[in-house]
Amino acid sequence: MISTVSQENGVLADLSQRHQPIIDRAVQALHERTFFSQYPENPSPAIYGETADQDGLASYKKHLGQRFTELLTPESEGWAGQEESPYEQEKLGITYPYYSTETLITRAQAAFHVWRKVSPAQRAAVLVETLERVKARFFEIAHATMHTTGQAFMMSFQASGPHAADRALEAIAAGYEELTRFPEQQVWEKPMGKYSLKLNKIWTPVPKGISLVIGCSTFPTWNTVPGMYASLVTGNPVIVKPHPKGVLPIAIFIAEVQKVLAEYGFDPAICQLALDPDDRLITKELAEHPAVKLIDYTGGSTFGNYLEGLSGKTVFTEKAGVNPILLDSVEDLDKVVQNLAFSLTLYSGQMCTAPQNFFIPETGVKVAGELVPYETVVQKLAEAVTGLVNNPKAGPHVLGAIQNPLTQQRVKELGSLNGKSLLDTCEIANPAFSNARICTPVLYEVASRDKDVFSQELFGPIALVIKTKDTHESIKLAQEMAMEHGAISCGAYTTDPALKAEIMDQMGLAGTPVSFNLTGGIYVNQNAAFSDFHVTGGNPAGNASFTNPEFMVKRFTWVGFREPAAV
Amino acid sequence: MISTVSQENGVLADLSQRHQPIIDRAVQALHERTFFSQYPENPSPAIYGETADQDGLASYKKHLGQRFTELLTPESEGWAGQEESPYEQEKLGITYPYYSTETLITRAQAAFHVWRKVSPAQRAAVLVETLERVKARFFEIAHATMHTTGQAFMMSFQASGPHAADRALEAIAAGYEELTRFPEQQVWEKPMGKYSLKLNKIWTPVPKGISLVIGCSTFPTWNTVPGMYASLVTGNPVIVKPHPKGVLPIAIFIAEVQKVLAEYGFDPAICQLALDPDDRLITKELAEHPAVKLIDYTGGSTFGNYLEGLSGKTVFTEKAGVNPILLDSVEDLDKVVQNLAFSLTLYSGQMCTAPQNFFIPETGVKVAGELVPYETVVQKLAEAVTGLVNNPKAGPHVLGAIQNPLTQQRVKELGSLNGKSLLDTCEIANPAFSNARICTPVLYEVASRDKDVFSQELFGPIALVIKTKDTHESIKLAQEMAMEHGAISCGAYTTDPALKAEIMDQMGLAGTPVSFNLTGGIYVNQNAAFSDFHVTGGNPAGNASFTNPEFMVKRFTWVGFREPAAV
Repeated sequence: MISTVSQENGVLADLSQRHQPIIDRAVQALHERTFFSQYPENPSPAIYGETADQDGLASYKKHLGQRFTELLTPESEGWAGQEESPYEQEKLGITYPYYSTETLITRAQAAFHVWRKVSPAQRAAVLVETLERVKARFFEIAHATMHTTGQAFMMSFQASGPHAADRALEAIAAGYEELTRFPEQQVWEKPMGKYSLKLNKIWTPVPKGISLVIGCSTFPTWNTVPGMYASLVTGNPVIVKPHPKGVLPIAIFIAEVQKVLAEYGFDPAICQLALDPDDRLITKELAEHPAVKLIDYTGGSTFGNYLEGLSGKTVFTEKAGVNPILLDSVEDLDKVVQNLAFSLTLYSGQMCTAPQNFFIPETGVKVAGELVPYETVVQKLAEAVTGLVNNPKAGPHVLGAIQNPLTQQRVKELGSLNGKSLLDTCEIANPAFSNARICTPVLYEVASRDKDVFSQELFGPIALVIKTKDTHESIKLAQEMAMEHGAISCGAYTTDPALKAEIMDQMGLAGTPVSFNLTGGIYVNQNAAFSDFHVTGGNPAGNASFTNPEFMVKRFTWVGFREPAAV
Repeated sequence: MISTVSQENGVLADLSQRHQPIIDRAVQALHERTFFSQYPENPSPAIYGETADQDGLASYKKHLGQRFTELLTPESEGWAGQEESPYEQEKLGITYPYYSTETLITRAQAAFHVWRKVSPAQRAAVLVETLERVKARFFEIAHATMHTTGQAFMMSFQASGPHAADRALEAIAAGYEELTRFPEQQVWEKPMGKYSLKLNKIWTPVPKGISLVIGCSTFPTWNTVPGMYASLVTGNPVIVKPHPKGVLPIAIFIAEVQKVLAEYGFDPAICQLALDPDDRLITKELAEHPAVKLIDYTGGSTFGNYLEGLSGKTVFTEKAGVNPILLDSVEDLDKVVQNLAFSLTLYSGQMCTAPQNFFIPETGVKVAGELVPYETVVQKLAEAVTGLVNNPKAGPHVLGAIQNPLTQQRVKELGSLNGKSLLDTCEIANPAFSNARICTPVLYEVASRDKDVFSQELFGPIALVIKTKDTHESIKLAQEMAMEHGAISCGAYTTDPALKAEIMDQMGLAGTPVSFNLTGGIYVNQNAAFSDFHVTGGNPAGNASFTNPEFMVKRFTWVGFREPAAV
């Protein structure tokens, strides 16, 4: 039943043969869970070519003020675009074609009946090919990401390029594995004494239908491609609706996907870009359409909860959370505060994994066995942040810029909350972009009884220091916050094995991954494809996880067919 | 973090070693999907012992009129019981201990923190041991099932005993596989040029919490144990709330589970029986309790839809459906109508897989190339049913008895629907039970335009014959009914390969498994553990499937822990 389109397609068969080793290697990596990456994160000329960066920048600049015409979806119903650069605080002037919901759905529906009949191996191969093509545009995507999200160049390159492509490959591999986990057919023979009953059986993973993937403004490809490729590999046509302020990076991705689809004889509408016209938002209209069966979403909790409540849909969300840091005992306090200062400063706290609530006992933190007072710990943390942001060689490249003016406003209005300022924000200059929207991290002290203050996500470079009675109270509060308000990451510092076990147990129950005792070049914010599950689904910060089996199996249903075997 | 309780328990380690081969074999069977059974379905004395049947009957009779005191949950808050035999139309007089929702939840909560720390392999071994113990009570459970559900002896034995135990083993195996699918720990080493980042990582499947399993009146163990064992193997404590008319079969199961738990030093409250007191139903109270995280349900659609709509719960349902038979072309019409008559008569149509809507073209059915008129086909089907029910050696043993008086009433009131009676119900005698509630199958003709008649489940021995224009209309209507009202099974008869492909494609999209051209000793009603997925989750008849990976992975969340490796 499946494969009717593609098995006769020799070019596709060749592609499948060529990419099967990558898919097999990626499946293996999923189960080893040690380091694996198909796309190098190092933007070095030795890897990507001498002129890759300047070519990418030039390609990015060519888009400015122009219509984006690379998409293979014909007869646009209009053109719209609202992007602006957080580095230049100016409009990009790029416009994209938009279509009515009915047009998008009708095209997706037609594409569904082609795509669902392609075999899992061939779908996976086509999708791997799209990543290979996107690879040639990593630098262009990096500059597009900088000027939509405000990320610094290195993060823009890594997160939107190789890391996103690795996450996409992870979804392809995980989907391929689930789709091929049971035999396509089998002879079932039941001994009945003198004779046996014999049935030929076939099992088919039937995709659910049209998939809507809703992007966010801060990670326009990294947070979008896992759901997009997960739906595609399982046979569902995808409509990607990016955040109106972060379209270009994912538009380039989609353009490459469409080109590969067309090249292999498929309808490009298997993967469409949906755009909000300038005067209205179409996400609800799309989400509520009865033909949309799958929804992937990254963004605020209010809209995420609304989506999760829609009936008749399978919904995958990543929403807001309040990520804790637990400070109990350390070997080297300077290394710890440097690590934490970096985590807080990186992309100005605009990562979903950035820490927010720093729980520190009022009795202080044990440092190599000696108790260091609470005030000293807080002061050292503040100094580490100040030192990092004021270092001209590091500060601007770690901070990046602020994507949304509301985030800057939130930082400025922090004083209205219950608590005390420990470190104010300051204005620093970005030497390359004099008009960049910048806002350095602030530290704000909150009493452990003022839960209403630290139970909300304060998106941006805002760290709350919560003075607790002891580490047990820190753990209790961190767990309660995660269970009731969500958490995507947790950093814990303790040299006490019993406390470590308690933290694993209690934060585990709250569905929150924990990084212990991080110092040096690895940070609580970072989650690696093929090893770290990103968002567990175990607390209100989201119901999905990149890329665990659940992220795949809910996108299709197993259906069996059987018939007596010829005797 | 896990295994702290059990690794020190030598007796448990021995048990684990003893049962690991069964678990490994069952995992293998899951992936082969050819015939596999751990528990023989043949109730022969050669297998189960010369006196097994009479001992089982005696044990069953000892329960009558008594308190059921085998459960290891102390201090009952009262005793209640409402069961009555469909064969004798008399109360069984058995009472069971009941507890308030708060008592049940408090005990389950305490048990959770013990059970979740046991390793997957040891949990699986304990659960396999419970099945081995239940095996010794298959005959007792069979008689208990007869006198609560009205099933005939053979079905009571097979469905509630070996088939249920095989489904339970399937859930244990599938859960064990998912829980052990990723490494417990791994060293993650990322090359960074001159040095490498090295993290020790641990991944833990964290169970979601208290699991409520809601049983139905017709299959008190077969439909209950998959969810019960799926939750248990994944580390969740279970509260089983059987239908008040079908308690004894599953109470025996639970008693054996509790005895094994206690024997190995565990709190029996890991698996509790919840009972409705005689004056009220407690299911909603339990389902809505915030501590209940998982719900498994078999029963009517109204209550199932209510459960699916509860927020903050993971819900697995099997609800009502309208199962189609598509008649297009056959080799031997007599064999086909005999097969269909059996499917319809088996347990008087009270199986969730029983066919209801028989779509037959008005132009007739091709039989070995010759067109046989519609009227003849219908007449032969009616004659086959009459022949079967009037055969004293077969009829009573296939029909069984009617579980619920409302089902009998539904059959009698069928004449009020739009349509025409083709075969009336008749009263036949069961030689062993003169007072049995019996009702033979009826055939009722409905026009294809009267969708309101055949779009509802008419539970019981009721078959609607829907006269269609042709097989394409039959397929279209069957698909529409399945998509909008649900279907758990579909039987199709065609010798035309193109039509067969069309049926697979269209019913596949409706998430409905199809059995083609069944004749002889295999029926559309039967779904085998380790091979047939039961309910796909792909249409409104239910959102769960025994036992696909989704049935397991939604019961726990993966949580990762990481820490820099010592250099």
